[in-house]
Amino acid sequence: MNRLSGIRSIMEDIATTGVAGGQETTVNLSPGNPSHNPEVVATWERLVRETLDEQFHDTSTRYGPSRGSAVLVEAIVDYFNATYGWSIRPENVLVGPGSQLLSFIATTLFTGPGPGGRMRHLVLPRTPDYTGYQGLSLDQAGLVGVEPQVCAAGERFFRYGLDLDAVRRVDDIGMLLLSNPSNPSGSSIDATELAELITVAKEHDAPLVIDHAYGEPFPRIAPSDIKPVLHSHVVNLFTLSKAGIPAERIAFAIGPSHLIDPMVSFMANSALHAPQLLQATVARAFAKGDIDTLTAQHITPYYTAKRALAGRLLAESLPAAVNWRLHSGDRGLFCWLLVDHDWFDDLRFYETLKRHGVFIVPGRHFFAPPLTTPFLRTHGKRCVRLSLSPGEDELAAGIRRLSAVLGGLVSDGGGRG
Amino acid sequence: MNRLSGIRSIMEDIATTGVAGGQETTVNLSPGNPSHNPEVVATWERLVRETLDEQFHDTSTRYGPSRGSAVLVEAIVDYFNATYGWSIRPENVLVGPGSQLLSFIATTLFTGPGPGGRMRHLVLPRTPDYTGYQGLSLDQAGLVGVEPQVCAAGERFFRYGLDLDAVRRVDDIGMLLLSNPSNPSGSSIDATELAELITVAKEHDAPLVIDHAYGEPFPRIAPSDIKPVLHSHVVNLFTLSKAGIPAERIAFAIGPSHLIDPMVSFMANSALHAPQLLQATVARAFAKGDIDTLTAQHITPYYTAKRALAGRLLAESLPAAVNWRLHSGDRGLFCWLLVDHDWFDDLRFYETLKRHGVFIVPGRHFFAPPLTTPFLRTHGKRCVRLSLSPGEDELAAGIRRLSAVLGGLVSDGGGRG
Repeated sequence: MNRLSGIRSIMEDIATTGVAGGQETTVNLSPGNPSHNPEVVATWERLVRETLDEQFHDTSTRYGPSRGSAVLVEAIVDYFNATYGWSIRPENVLVGPGSQLLSFIATTLFTGPGPGGRMRHLVLPRTPDYTGYQGLSLDQAGLVGVEPQVCAAGERFFRYGLDLDAVRRVDDIGMLLLSNPSNPSGSSIDATELAELITVAKEHDAPLVIDHAYGEPFPRIAPSDIKPVLHSHVVNLFTLSKAGIPAERIAFAIGPSHLIDPMVSFMANSALHAPQLLQATVARAFAKGDIDTLTAQHITPYYTAKRALAGRLLAESLPAAVNWRLHSGDRGLFCWLLVDHDWFDDLRFYETLKRHGVFIVPGRHFFAPPLTTPFLRTHGKRCVRLSLSPGEDELAAGIRRLSAVLGGLVSDGGGRG
Repeated sequence: MNRLSGIRSIMEDIATTGVAGGQETTVNLSPGNPSHNPEVVATWERLVRETLDEQFHDTSTRYGPSRGSAVLVEAIVDYFNATYGWSIRPENVLVGPGSQLLSFIATTLFTGPGPGGRMRHLVLPRTPDYTGYQGLSLDQAGLVGVEPQVCAAGERFFRYGLDLDAVRRVDDIGMLLLSNPSNPSGSSIDATELAELITVAKEHDAPLVIDHAYGEPFPRIAPSDIKPVLHSHVVNLFTLSKAGIPAERIAFAIGPSHLIDPMVSFMANSALHAPQLLQATVARAFAKGDIDTLTAQHITPYYTAKRALAGRLLAESLPAAVNWRLHSGDRGLFCWLLVDHDWFDDLRFYETLKRHGVFIVPGRHFFAPPLTTPFLRTHGKRCVRLSLSPGEDELAAGIRRLSAVLGGLVSDGGGRG
């Protein structure tokens, strides 16, 4: 916990190089930020202003409940009950200052050394997955990432599937955690895979924590094959980050009270509660329907168009001689690009691109380290993540340069490989 | 971590009873909230509005640095260097979503099972102290509270002193933590005691974490005999909560980079970063001088007058036959009242007062449990905390009722004691 993970070193490197280089022509395809979408920004600014005008004294000058402010918890209950026909109540909800902290709390409660000294593992059942999960464990030895099945789809696409047999072979599961659809690839489990994961969770009496950051019911940046479910062993995480306000750290968990209750107590003891001006703002967005309007009218169409553009640009410019494939999906915040050659090394490619003023994220960091297996020593070094967050011109320039650099590596005989 | 501490049960009880009873005449002298001070609220509302008008897009729609947003870190550096003649730099600063989380991070990093399995204790060198510290340890067995020296001062006052010999006798110190001036009593260590604590910290190579929530250089709600210091073994915590925005969870740590760096990494892995709209707002308050104006013109004078009023009311109305004493201090958010009789029991008094529609906080929760020593079985049960946060009328009504109830206990022969 007291050290930066590999991905954060990369992020530091990008920040430092970007600043130091001062290159005007630097193209940054690394960000995990949602795009600057004027309608989305304007909506949130208006909602914050309304809250400030009407509720500043009530929201900001008093400590609030650790579960979340009453107005937001109620708005969440009403929204999800209306959207999914559920009958959740406030005791099923916990608001927190970001889903990273909610994940940290769940991980600290449900994994680590257990009764009798047995290690309860934090299991990522389908890697690659969000790199932030790797920093959650107070005991790094407790992290297990399960390798996926890789299925080709057509000539230039592939998708990851859950390797259920491998998940079933993991001992001492304390908690299962996955982003769905996933950062980085956009892959989604389907209803059958969800049912199987729940079965595994029940067998281990371990919570299955599903992070819907990109998915259902908002912001629908990437397509999901499942909706959130209510189950005695499932905790759902939702965040407003990709809906436009990543800096304000508002997220929430929905699950059975026997799992939510200890998380509320942990919140009370650690962070006290999430900031309240933005909690009231988000309550407003739920109650007045802005969340659904933003999702349907601005966010989903935007990323659908952006992904289609990136797909066209990559198909047009990547060297035909290279065996490249994109993870399939019709929208998303990222493109997950596989360059399926022995000579390709994601970290070396990162460094080479950096010299050409393009930043991407090497793929290995999304697999739980270390890269010790045959799969990780091959596939695990052959992927890179490209962000669709930058503007169209920057995206196009980045893809052109990336393609040219990759072409150069091929004509060099596979980049020193 | 997954259970509510005693004090939180009391807080839940107050919230529940307050709501359920619906008594209009309920007087709540329990809050830890700062007072509703119109000038303070108006200042913060204006500062948030200015930030929203000028910086919403820059602050709220992008992830920020885990150390804190550049503008706030710079403002903190400039403010503290100007105020104390220091030469701190950004690497000495960490902004977080509340000082509770900063304390939690420090506790998790610096205490608990250490190399070789030895328990590194979280040591509260001068109890009573903030109850929230008792919930910080992932391993409750790791908490050690040191009993204070109790010094009478005049006929109706007393003060707590540090029992340095007792502090020196504690083995395996992982971290020393105290609020100064303290919640609940307002007691402050002096320069000599600080120097001695630093010596102990050095001998154990353990950080001394000093939480200035009520003290220097802002909000000066309670008087402090020390200023924050820079030292290789000291981490200073500051929060904007008692300066008026407790709900927005902005706090920061200042210390040597070798202690701050691992805390930044832990922040990156757990909470990512503090919310940014309010970070920018606080930066504005530092850079434009609002913090000092609020402190000097509104906060310090307000609590000086309030404490004087409470002192007068208590002196006028508490039964002369009762051996009561107040912790000395010329201002503060609380009165810490000692009723120094065998028959007095803080929890029983809490329940009795509750039946009379008055809420106070029993004192025992501010001593680290369990109450096993002779000191804790006597003094530890004879204190209550009264908040000066309510309005003057409510405060006066509460003190009158409390005095009447205490008078009744005396004439009953010491409340069943």
